[in-house]
Amino acid sequence: MRLSRYFLPTLKENPSEAQITSHRLMLRAGMIRQSSAGIYSWLPLGLKVLRNIEKIVREEQDRAGAQEILMPTIQPAEIWQESGRYDAYGKEMLRITDRHEREMLYGPTNEEMVTDIFRHNIKSYKQLPALLYHIQWKFRDEIRPRFGVMRGREFLMKDAYSFDIDKERARDTYNRMYVAYLRTFARLGLVAIPVRADTGAIGGDLSHEFQILAETGESTLYYDKALETQEMLEKLADLENNEGIVEKLQSLYAAEEEKHDPDNCPVAPENLKTAKGVEVGHIFNFGQKYSASMGARVLDQDGQQVEVEMGSYGIGVSRLVAALIEANHDEDGIIWPQSVAPYQVGLINLQAKNAECTKACDDIYKKLQEAGIEVLYDDRTERPGAKFANMDLIGLPWQLIVGPKGLEKGIVEVKERATGERQELSVDAIVDKLKA
Amino acid sequence: MRLSRYFLPTLKENPSEAQITSHRLMLRAGMIRQSSAGIYSWLPLGLKVLRNIEKIVREEQDRAGAQEILMPTIQPAEIWQESGRYDAYGKEMLRITDRHEREMLYGPTNEEMVTDIFRHNIKSYKQLPALLYHIQWKFRDEIRPRFGVMRGREFLMKDAYSFDIDKERARDTYNRMYVAYLRTFARLGLVAIPVRADTGAIGGDLSHEFQILAETGESTLYYDKALETQEMLEKLADLENNEGIVEKLQSLYAAEEEKHDPDNCPVAPENLKTAKGVEVGHIFNFGQKYSASMGARVLDQDGQQVEVEMGSYGIGVSRLVAALIEANHDEDGIIWPQSVAPYQVGLINLQAKNAECTKACDDIYKKLQEAGIEVLYDDRTERPGAKFANMDLIGLPWQLIVGPKGLEKGIVEVKERATGERQELSVDAIVDKLKA
Repeated sequence: MRLSRYFLPTLKENPSEAQITSHRLMLRAGMIRQSSAGIYSWLPLGLKVLRNIEKIVREEQDRAGAQEILMPTIQPAEIWQESGRYDAYGKEMLRITDRHEREMLYGPTNEEMVTDIFRHNIKSYKQLPALLYHIQWKFRDEIRPRFGVMRGREFLMKDAYSFDIDKERARDTYNRMYVAYLRTFARLGLVAIPVRADTGAIGGDLSHEFQILAETGESTLYYDKALETQEMLEKLADLENNEGIVEKLQSLYAAEEEKHDPDNCPVAPENLKTAKGVEVGHIFNFGQKYSASMGARVLDQDGQQVEVEMGSYGIGVSRLVAALIEANHDEDGIIWPQSVAPYQVGLINLQAKNAECTKACDDIYKKLQEAGIEVLYDDRTERPGAKFANMDLIGLPWQLIVGPKGLEKGIVEVKERATGERQELSVDAIVDKLKA
Repeated sequence: MRLSRYFLPTLKENPSEAQITSHRLMLRAGMIRQSSAGIYSWLPLGLKVLRNIEKIVREEQDRAGAQEILMPTIQPAEIWQESGRYDAYGKEMLRITDRHEREMLYGPTNEEMVTDIFRHNIKSYKQLPALLYHIQWKFRDEIRPRFGVMRGREFLMKDAYSFDIDKERARDTYNRMYVAYLRTFARLGLVAIPVRADTGAIGGDLSHEFQILAETGESTLYYDKALETQEMLEKLADLENNEGIVEKLQSLYAAEEEKHDPDNCPVAPENLKTAKGVEVGHIFNFGQKYSASMGARVLDQDGQQVEVEMGSYGIGVSRLVAALIEANHDEDGIIWPQSVAPYQVGLINLQAKNAECTKACDDIYKKLQEAGIEVLYDDRTERPGAKFANMDLIGLPWQLIVGPKGLEKGIVEVKERATGERQELSVDAIVDKLKA
C-alpha cells in the first residue's frame, strides 16, 4: 500500500483524552477514532491488526475442535428471563424495546442464546461433545467507559461454549481450551499467566483468567516463575495428549495482588515472580447452571434425559489489540510482533522528488510484493524526520530506508523496529532477508 | 470435516414458517436458525457460505481501490440529527437509550458516521478521492420481517462511501463501483441486471439497483437482452479503462414492472427480455447532501473550502446467501456455485460399517485434503438413501459415492450436483479431476 493513498490519519500530539499508553498510541497511529463514549471506528491500520489477531484466535479454536457459528448481536429478553439473568445483569446490559414493544437486548455474552440453539438441535449423547464458538461484537454499557478499546462498550469477543455428557468429559474439554488459550497467546508473542479466578455472574466453580504480562498492565500478579518459562511454552504442542502436564500447570501458583498473601504463599521466594498483567481471556466450567434452568437435555446411553455439563470460554479480541500494545511499545511508538503486524515492512523513500530514488523504491516495493511480503510504502514528499517518526509510531517490524547516498553505493538501510539495529544491504539481499 | 462430528442439523420436513424457497432450504440444510423475528443465528454450514461471499465482495472492493474500515453498530443520535434523518427515518430505526439517558441507535446505514469520520480526518483535496467501505451488521426494524435472511432485521451489509472534489470525479468513482458490482456478481455466478432507480431516503439524483435473475425472485424486470450476454461479462475486466463501455451499458434499457410501459419501451420487441429478479445491491451518487448538512469540507487547489461530492454503495451480503439459493436450486435442494460452496466435495461412505469401504473413504478424504480441496465426509452409519438426500439438500458441487461394489472394480462414482451427471472413475483419477 502506498502511504500517499492510504487512509492513515496519524497524530503528532498526544490526544488529551487518552490516559493509557495503548489508547494514546492507537489514536496517534490512526488505528481507531472514537464515535461516542466507549464506541470506536476501526480505521484501515487498526482493522488489519484486529483481523490478524482474529485469524490466530480462530485457527486455535478450530484446532481445538471448536466449530464456528455466528449468533446475532440482538437477543430476545425471554431467554435471559429463563436463565434468571435478565434482572440480575443490571445496567451494564443495553436494553432495547423494538417497534412492537418487545423487550430485546444487545448481547453482552451468549450462554443463553447458545443453550437455546443447543436444546432445539442436539438431542442425543451421540452428538456430544459439542463445542461451538463465534467471534461477534458485544455490548456492555459500562458506567465509565475509558482506556480506549481496553474497556470499551462495543467490543469484539471470541466466545466458545461446550456441552458434555458428564463432569469428567467437561473437565477434559475445559483443559483442551486451557491449552488452546496458552497456544493462542504464545502465537501472538505474549506471555500469558493463567490465574484461578472467581466465576462471578457466569456461575460454576472452576475458572481461569489469562493475564498477559505488560509493564503498563492494570493488575499486579504474583506467580510461580515456572509459568513463564520457554520450556512451558514449548510443551504446549504436546499438552493436549498429556493431561498430566495440564494438571501440573494448573497446580502452579498464580494470584492477583488482592488475593496474594505473602505470609502464606506456597512458592519459595526465589521462585516467586511479580509483574503487571492485562486480562485478555477467561474460561469457565459451570456445570448445569444453564442446562438446568433452560432445559438443555440429551438422551444418555441408557435412554435417560440428562442435563448437559457446560463451559464457556472468552477472549477479548479487540481488547487484545490494546493489550499487545501495552506489552510491545517504547517511547517512539508501537512495536508489533510479526504475527499480527498490519504490514511486515515499511519502505521509506527519503527523496520522493528524486527520480532515481523513487525508481529504486518502486522496484523494491514491487519485488517485496511479488515475494508475498506486505509493505507499506511511504512515497510522500515529507521530510525524512517526519517519515522516520511516523514509521516508528506505527511500529512495523522492519523499516527499509532508501536514499540517494546509499543507492550510489548500491545499498539500502534495514532497521529492525524492536531492537533499533541497522544493517546496510543490497536490494537483492534485502528481499532474501525479509523472505526469511 | 467429518459429518459425524459436524454441527449440521438438517431437517427432513419443510418448516411451516418458511414461505419462500431460500428460507425453506436454509432451515432444512441446517444453515440458520431463527433467534427472534427476523434475527438469525448462522450455523457452521451457513456461516461458511456467508464468509465466502464476503471474501469475494471484499476482494472486488479492494480491487476498485476502496479501503476497508469497520464502524460500530451502535451510533449516537446527534449525527443523525445533524443530517436531518433522525426524525425522517421513522420506526425502521432501532432507537436505544443508554444508562446515561443518551439517545443512540443501531445503525441501519452509515452515511452520517462515515461523513463524521471524514470531516475530522481529511482536510485537503490532495487526500481525495477517498473511498471507504466496511462489512458490518445493520439493523432495520421491519414491521413484518419475513422470508428468512432475505428480509431480516439484523443483516450483514457491505457499504462503501466515496468522497470526491467535484462532480466529474464523483461520477468516475460511481462508474468504478458500478463495474466492481458487475464483477462481484459475475464471480458469484449470478447474472445481475443494473436498473436505474429512485434514490429515496438516501438522496441524490443518480442511482442503480442490481437485480440478480432468479425464477423465484420477487420483482419482475424488463430489460435489453444485451445486459445479460456473456460478451458483456467478458468485457468487465477491461471496463474500468473504458468509460465508453460503462456509458453504453448504463444506456441499455432495464426497468421494474411498475415503471415499464410496454407502449413506450425503447427496446425492439425481439431484444426485450423479462425475468424475475432479487435486489442485492444499490449504488447512489448523492452529491453534497451530507457534506453540506454536516460540514464535510476540504481545501481545494485554490485554497477554498468546498463541500465534497459523495456517493454510497451497498451490497446485501447476508441477503446474497438467500438470493444465490433462489437462483440455484432444484426440487432436491441447493446447488452451490463453486465460488461460494461451503465445501467443494461431499464424500459419501455407503457402508460405514464395512472396514474396507471405510478405509477407502478415509484414504480419499486424506488425499483430497492434501490436495487443498475442502471435503465434507459423510462417515455416518445412515442408510444410503438418507445420505443421498442429505447431500443433494446441502448442494455441494461434487459428490463422491463410495461403496463395496465399486471398490471391487477399483472405481468410485462421481456425481455433479448441478447436472446430475455421473461418472465412474478410479481414486487417482478423481483427485486429478477435482483438482482441475
